[in-house]
Amino acid sequence: MSTREDGRADDELRPITITRNWLDHPAGSVLIEFGRTRVLCAASASEGVPRWRKGSGLGWVTAEYAMLPASTNTRSDRESVKGRIGGRTHEISRLIGRSLRAVIDYKALGENTIQIDCDVLQADGGTRTAAITGAYVALADACAKLGVPQALTGSVAAVSVGIIDGVPRLDLPYVEDVRAETDMNVVMTGAGAFVEVQGTAEGAPFDRAELDALLSLAEKGCADLTRLQLAARA
Amino acid sequence: MSTREDGRADDELRPITITRNWLDHPAGSVLIEFGRTRVLCAASASEGVPRWRKGSGLGWVTAEYAMLPASTNTRSDRESVKGRIGGRTHEISRLIGRSLRAVIDYKALGENTIQIDCDVLQADGGTRTAAITGAYVALADACAKLGVPQALTGSVAAVSVGIIDGVPRLDLPYVEDVRAETDMNVVMTGAGAFVEVQGTAEGAPFDRAELDALLSLAEKGCADLTRLQLAARA
Amino acid sequence: MSTREDGRADDELRPITITRNWLDHPAGSVLIEFGRTRVLCAASASEGVPRWRKGSGLGWVTAEYAMLPASTNTRSDRESVKGRIGGRTHEISRLIGRSLRAVIDYKALGENTIQIDCDVLQADGGTRTAAITGAYVALADACAKLGVPQALTGSVAAVSVGIIDGVPRLDLPYVEDVRAETDMNVVMTGAGAFVEVQGTAEGAPFDRAELDALLSLAEKGCADLTRLQLAARA
Amino acid sequence: MSTREDGRADDELRPITITRNWLDHPAGSVLIEFGRTRVLCAASASEGVPRWRKGSGLGWVTAEYAMLPASTNTRSDRESVKGRIGGRTHEISRLIGRSLRAVIDYKALGENTIQIDCDVLQADGGTRTAAITGAYVALADACAKLGVPQALTGSVAAVSVGIIDGVPRLDLPYVEDVRAETDMNVVMTGAGAFVEVQGTAEGAPFDRAELDALLSLAEKGCADLTRLQLAARA
Amino acid sequence: MSTREDGRADDELRPITITRNWLDHPAGSVLIEFGRTRVLCAASASEGVPRWRKGSGLGWVTAEYAMLPASTNTRSDRESVKGRIGGRTHEISRLIGRSLRAVIDYKALGENTIQIDCDVLQADGGTRTAAITGAYVALADACAKLGVPQALTGSVAAVSVGIIDGVPRLDLPYVEDVRAETDMNVVMTGAGAFVEVQGTAEGAPFDRAELDALLSLAEKGCADLTRLQLAARA
Amino acid sequence: MSTREDGRADDELRPITITRNWLDHPAGSVLIEFGRTRVLCAASASEGVPRWRKGSGLGWVTAEYAMLPASTNTRSDRESVKGRIGGRTHEISRLIGRSLRAVIDYKALGENTIQIDCDVLQADGGTRTAAITGAYVALADACAKLGVPQALTGSVAAVSVGIIDGVPRLDLPYVEDVRAETDMNVVMTGAGAFVEVQGTAEGAPFDRAELDALLSLAEKGCADLTRLQLAARA
Repeated sequence: MSTREDGRADDELRPITITRNWLDHPAGSVLIEFGRTRVLCAASASEGVPRWRKGSGLGWVTAEYAMLPASTNTRSDRESVKGRIGGRTHEISRLIGRSLRAVIDYKALGENTIQIDCDVLQADGGTRTAAITGAYVALADACAKLGVPQALTGSVAAVSVGIIDGVPRLDLPYVEDVRAETDMNVVMTGAGAFVEVQGTAEGAPFDRAELDALLSLAEKGCADLTRLQLAARA
Repeated sequence: MSTREDGRADDELRPITITRNWLDHPAGSVLIEFGRTRVLCAASASEGVPRWRKGSGLGWVTAEYAMLPASTNTRSDRESVKGRIGGRTHEISRLIGRSLRAVIDYKALGENTIQIDCDVLQADGGTRTAAITGAYVALADACAKLGVPQALTGSVAAVSVGIIDGVPRLDLPYVEDVRAETDMNVVMTGAGAFVEVQGTAEGAPFDRAELDALLSLAEKGCADLTRLQLAARA
Repeated sequence: MSTREDGRADDELRPITITRNWLDHPAGSVLIEFGRTRVLCAASASEGVPRWRKGSGLGWVTAEYAMLPASTNTRSDRESVKGRIGGRTHEISRLIGRSLRAVIDYKALGENTIQIDCDVLQADGGTRTAAITGAYVALADACAKLGVPQALTGSVAAVSVGIIDGVPRLDLPYVEDVRAETDMNVVMTGAGAFVEVQGTAEGAPFDRAELDALLSLAEKGCADLTRLQLAARA
Repeated sequence: MSTREDGRADDELRPITITRNWLDHPAGSVLIEFGRTRVLCAASASEGVPRWRKGSGLGWVTAEYAMLPASTNTRSDRESVKGRIGGRTHEISRLIGRSLRAVIDYKALGENTIQIDCDVLQADGGTRTAAITGAYVALADACAKLGVPQALTGSVAAVSVGIIDGVPRLDLPYVEDVRAETDMNVVMTGAGAFVEVQGTAEGAPFDRAELDALLSLAEKGCADLTRLQLAARA
Repeated sequence: MSTREDGRADDELRPITITRNWLDHPAGSVLIEFGRTRVLCAASASEGVPRWRKGSGLGWVTAEYAMLPASTNTRSDRESVKGRIGGRTHEISRLIGRSLRAVIDYKALGENTIQIDCDVLQADGGTRTAAITGAYVALADACAKLGVPQALTGSVAAVSVGIIDGVPRLDLPYVEDVRAETDMNVVMTGAGAFVEVQGTAEGAPFDRAELDALLSLAEKGCADLTRLQLAARA
Repeated sequence: MSTREDGRADDELRPITITRNWLDHPAGSVLIEFGRTRVLCAASASEGVPRWRKGSGLGWVTAEYAMLPASTNTRSDRESVKGRIGGRTHEISRLIGRSLRAVIDYKALGENTIQIDCDVLQADGGTRTAAITGAYVALADACAKLGVPQALTGSVAAVSVGIIDGVPRLDLPYVEDVRAETDMNVVMTGAGAFVEVQGTAEGAPFDRAELDALLSLAEKGCADLTRLQLAARA
């Protein structure tokens, strides 16, 4: 019997919705929902690459993450108004970029750039994992549209796991996230290999057994997400 | 017989959709669509007012406008990344704020602030007029939720008008906007009075007769939008 | 009998002074005074155009507006010290640029750029309209000096109008400006066509009749300013 | 027989030097060296806490990381000159702060702030792990000087591990870091629990067995560093 | 017989004009001209002092220097647009502030701040020395207007000197400034004491005899300027 | 008998230490100590020159100065975090650059740039003079390494002098610096000529005799430093 507020089993994802082509302009776009978390992922393609990569014959994929001011519980200030991007934003943008680049064959992409934008419309925990999971689908659609589906060497999905009251749980909403003693974000390929593992002791440090349990739970969650991505792209 | 690409009459609005409560967190929120233009309007309420207004017993309403990078035809850079807000963004944010303040009774609002956020998810012309029209509905919902519906002294709506090939037209999409010789944005109250009139000769300067024709067309459009706002709030 | 503090008729301009060649370095320069409002307008010419325009054979005109800290009633902070340009400054710079470009034949100008700087030395209302009116004269002198007087297809002048105590008045000084219920800035060509119309309800929204009265008053004011510009250039 | 360029065993740390009280002004300061990597760690104590924490009776610990321009192989630009802090700097500053806060009892610290500064004087891989390891010693000295040694609930140390040519290795210098297929930074307490685990697939994604091997290697390295910290504080 | 382009003797100032009350708003204002160099100096008084000085019973004087874009030979970019203040601007602002504070009795000023703004309208060498010389007169007028003339303990004036073709010259215009081997700015009190001495070898380093000759020339120039300041204030 | 807190004679330098090659990466590097003041000076060489100098056949030398946060008595905020460089930092960076360029033969350097970084690790007065004195040695090492020792036309050293309680003193530590009535920084070549003289009346203005005494003292101090630089390079 579940003890989670939303009635889920400890190893169960929230309801996931993946809506493709939510926007008209970018080559690929996805509105992804992890429960009440809602992220708009766009993949814009353009010819050419950044200066440091010109003439290499290789493409480039980069990502930017941001939250709309009214996406959070209490409104947060706009980073454009503050005139500087915060550390958390930087960190997540970099994580998304690295995660997607793990399944890109730059040579097959050719000297093209795909710019990923992940804008959080509503936040309820797990925005970065939803962003990665949705961005992959947008990226795949963009590669298809560009005529280079082979530039993708695999798929990626991401999920959060954490220990609440001593119990490992999958895909934490905000109310669980703030209570988690330990919090981990895991990015995996569709083939079941790890791309990123980021675990943080929010409360007490964690031992190796807890770490192992969290990793196993994440493996299960990413596998589920991979199936949902496949279904959405069918 | 219409000569507009989308088959509309010259004095006809695009299909308008107003979806209330699109977000869970802010006091009021509206996803408004003017054809393919899609703006997310949020009204976040907070106790207290800016320093310069403290102790006055009066409330405050302010607005910020922004475009998502992938909302435009070709991706536009993020202002948070550039580290500075452009002139156009500033200009529109100020316009939205002034427009909404025109129907606010600060005394009835009490020392509360309502912060309006208008984020363009998809742009196809008329983003500022859609933003004002949608923001009014979000603002009204926020006032109701705060228990001060009387803080609203009326309603506001806005529409663009322009002269294309010598003919005045209502509610321009992007393809008409770029071709317009003259372009005007008009903000009006539900009672039919003017709040803002901003006309610009993009090509040749315009004469008084053209100006008069545009104003009449805008009066018609704003009246239509007022009816749609009323229907959405029913 | 006038009821204005400075004894003017409601449709009368303040004393206007236009001093050409106030500076030695720029191609054109004008110190313009609308009563106590004093704006230094400079038109600096340089070969070449911005990158996005290179090779087009067309020229470019752009403008920047700023206020000296001690120009206002109580000192205002320097935007260079604050590290960012405010919305009002951006808005006015853009307005001046658009106004002047309305009378420029880019082809006749050739691939040259004229940069207009309007610096308010003393502010007493109407700084943006004085800036446009003076900048036109500086621009005309710069075109003459460059040997391309034909790059000007006409002249532009601008004036403010407003409704104070229910009465439309021309060319508002600061004391009238703060009391105006409605405030409008109008930019017109010497030939009597409109370039920009920007009307704002500061207090109560305004009706169509008031709007019409203001437009007529502005037409009168711009015609007077055009005569003064011609006289100054004689 | 080792195959590492510097002759170390795969599970061996570089020579570690910890020099306490390298500076006169801050409450604690340490120059730490991991081979040729040299980081100056300072712990400055001040009364009071950030605004959001005032009156709570709790203290605060925060950290900033930076690299001197000439610390790297080829000179890197100063972030103060660029006017913005890069994502990597933000990310590492946040990591150091979280790591140290994991062993702080805020109540025992009282309403005092300890600001950690980690400035990389010379970089040869592992600057963030050296920074955490050294900063802990500076923090401990500062707590002692403040008369609140009990504000520390344990110790922290950090080390990098990676897979090079299929072999897991401990404490990577720059030449190994750039060649690593997988790269992980691990922060642990002196008691052997995990505080942070950050693993990244630089080349190919990694499987669970590789992840396990890296974690075991990191446990060994952190235990060695803990002994060295203890010796330095004796 | 002079060899200077403008016919002056080597120890002769350019024509100096000091126009008081050039602005209506600030407590003191002066348009000062050193030949074609034209600087607008304003002294704005306000009650209160910066936070770090509150409750001390002492006043404060601070200064900001800036150049209008069109003041220079070829237009220079606006620092507000660049978003940062250059080193030269900072340096001169600080010099002006220190120079004026040298003759201020903070106690007599009381907890008031006088903000000096020196804006270069036209630059032809010696803008910082003109700024100091004019700012003193504006400051004196502001003190008088505030009813605290005794807050001034003396007067200050400043002049540039330099060695051109081996000959020391007073008050260098731009054409001489760029050719000077050595360049010195000297700030002195009306009583003949030194406040600031800033000498720079632009070309070859200078010996003690040259330094002495320059100092003597500066003493002469500052004495002349002191007489002109007195005359202007009569 | 000395009255200085540290027992020095009035014309005596603090203990000076010059440690060459303190860093592995830059072409030249020096850790210089003036008593407890400790500055890390690095000279990084790179091919090419700034755009405005390209094709001239001439090299370039530029400098940046900064203080580590924990270098000062009470921690100072990081300029990278504040997002802007302060006036004092700008001023000193410019001074160091000018001082070193006084002994550079740009032609002999060829189209190469040497970037000097002076980072204050610990501050106890005289940081800018220590920086110049140390940077010269790093620059000389860099020129030697580049194979262009002849690009140096001489040496430079710098020292501070000041009047405390009416007595001129050499090389002021912080406790003397804050008490100085007059404070002067002097940069001289090894051949005994002046490169920069910057004197400031912190308290009362100073007369010509005091100025002369300070200059003589500085000549003595710079000569001593020149000998120490020579010894260090032997």
